[in-house]
Amino acid sequence: MNFATYSSGGDTFYGGVTEGGMIALNDAFPQWPTLLDAVQADGLAALGAAAADRPVTHKDVQYEMVLPNARRIICVGVNFPDRNAEYKDGSEQPKFMSLFPRFASGFTGHDRPLIRPPESDQLDYEGEVAVVIGTGGRRIAQADAYDHIAGLTICNEGTIRDWVRHAKFNVTQGKNWDNSGAIGPWLVPFTDAAQLDDARIITRVNGEVRQDDVLARMMHPIRREIEYISTFMTLEPGDIIVTGTPTGSGARLDPPQFLKPGDVVEVEVNTIGTLRNTIKDEEV
Amino acid sequence: MNFATYSSGGDTFYGGVTEGGMIALNDAFPQWPTLLDAVQADGLAALGAAAADRPVTHKDVQYEMVLPNARRIICVGVNFPDRNAEYKDGSEQPKFMSLFPRFASGFTGHDRPLIRPPESDQLDYEGEVAVVIGTGGRRIAQADAYDHIAGLTICNEGTIRDWVRHAKFNVTQGKNWDNSGAIGPWLVPFTDAAQLDDARIITRVNGEVRQDDVLARMMHPIRREIEYISTFMTLEPGDIIVTGTPTGSGARLDPPQFLKPGDVVEVEVNTIGTLRNTIKDEEV
Repeated sequence: MNFATYSSGGDTFYGGVTEGGMIALNDAFPQWPTLLDAVQADGLAALGAAAADRPVTHKDVQYEMVLPNARRIICVGVNFPDRNAEYKDGSEQPKFMSLFPRFASGFTGHDRPLIRPPESDQLDYEGEVAVVIGTGGRRIAQADAYDHIAGLTICNEGTIRDWVRHAKFNVTQGKNWDNSGAIGPWLVPFTDAAQLDDARIITRVNGEVRQDDVLARMMHPIRREIEYISTFMTLEPGDIIVTGTPTGSGARLDPPQFLKPGDVVEVEVNTIGTLRNTIKDEEV
Repeated sequence: MNFATYSSGGDTFYGGVTEGGMIALNDAFPQWPTLLDAVQADGLAALGAAAADRPVTHKDVQYEMVLPNARRIICVGVNFPDRNAEYKDGSEQPKFMSLFPRFASGFTGHDRPLIRPPESDQLDYEGEVAVVIGTGGRRIAQADAYDHIAGLTICNEGTIRDWVRHAKFNVTQGKNWDNSGAIGPWLVPFTDAAQLDDARIITRVNGEVRQDDVLARMMHPIRREIEYISTFMTLEPGDIIVTGTPTGSGARLDPPQFLKPGDVVEVEVNTIGTLRNTIKDEEV
């Protein structure tokens, strides 16, 4: 059973996802007002058990960002072979991974529009796997890293490309536009290493494949990401790590091809699902 | 009346700060369990009025980070004249400000130790003014920017210097070590533009002045910071902007002088107070 945060009739719920609709679970777990609370309480198994006995409650829903109140989202940059070469700056492969935080406000849910602001025509996609921490820890060893993951989801780490290099350092202002990315459609409980080790990311724009790579080729594998990040900060349940995108973002095509209103972007991960978003211009 | 978050006898409180001790206020405002909740509800004036009628409740307290549950902290880098030149990389003055998020977990409170981890001997100070947003907004005009500030506090934006340049982009891993910085000692309600316009930052290490500059010399003034950040993300009540540090951090001295156990760092801002921290090696 996978879990989503969704809204229906003006209210927000979380629940189990079935082909026939959503099984609302928040009423059954008043101690966990949000899906994040359930993750923080190591409650995904309890949610799954409860959903097995309950009927579909909502058929017509709007997906929300899967953990809309996530407190800390850390993204890993330049993590697939050839991604460093894409920058064409002559720099050597860096020894350590690039990391940047994004705020939850930058992400919308599945099947909802990514917003292109009037300040830029360079909205770009980045398909990625996101892991949600279930058990916190500091200086976590690579061998133990998977034990700290509660679930998996997909991120379209949408970026306003020309704002990424506005400043001397840091990509913050290109990576944190309101509703410029998406996380979803749902949270998949992590129960088997193969869900990561055999994962493949395919990103399509209007059906055309733009990114296609396997997590096994990451330069800094997810076990290493957890080890490295937990060196400097104590990871906490509910933290999200967005683990890196393959080559092929729109900025790197020749000529660059940025997203336009009406485009449809799909990020498919074989072990998780497909996150689909359209593009819309902001109404200012 | 200024407001602090503090602990005493194992419990955490927030309240008004007087020379004779703290006036606990959280019992009087059960709708606001934390000082952040009061800020988000535009409640600082109500806190001040309530404190006027109440006695000192705690004399022996431990200061906490002033808003320990702050959700978004955005720091501005390279924002004083000569700071760009300090990097000695031949680059021109950037047109836009550098921005990087820090998580609340990176900050401790006043009078408590900054932690030097075993992975580095390059713990460094950066004295800064921090503004706490009171009224949210998007695309806020500079002329209106001060109307969006609820209060002011001080940040020692402590940095593990050698980890700042680990990666190709971004300073994340040098800026987010657990308890490597501090925010406090208290939150000063913002009622007069002069609290910012006439502010001067002096940072001392063991009594020796290392940084001394005035906010009026910032390259990107605070009004511009609020305008720029709110271009890409909707500012929300309780967001913290750490506005930039003057020249003179330990890394830029010749030879560099990093913080050592037993050192005392004070960041004094004439319109806010003095944030003092000692340095301690982490017990691993």
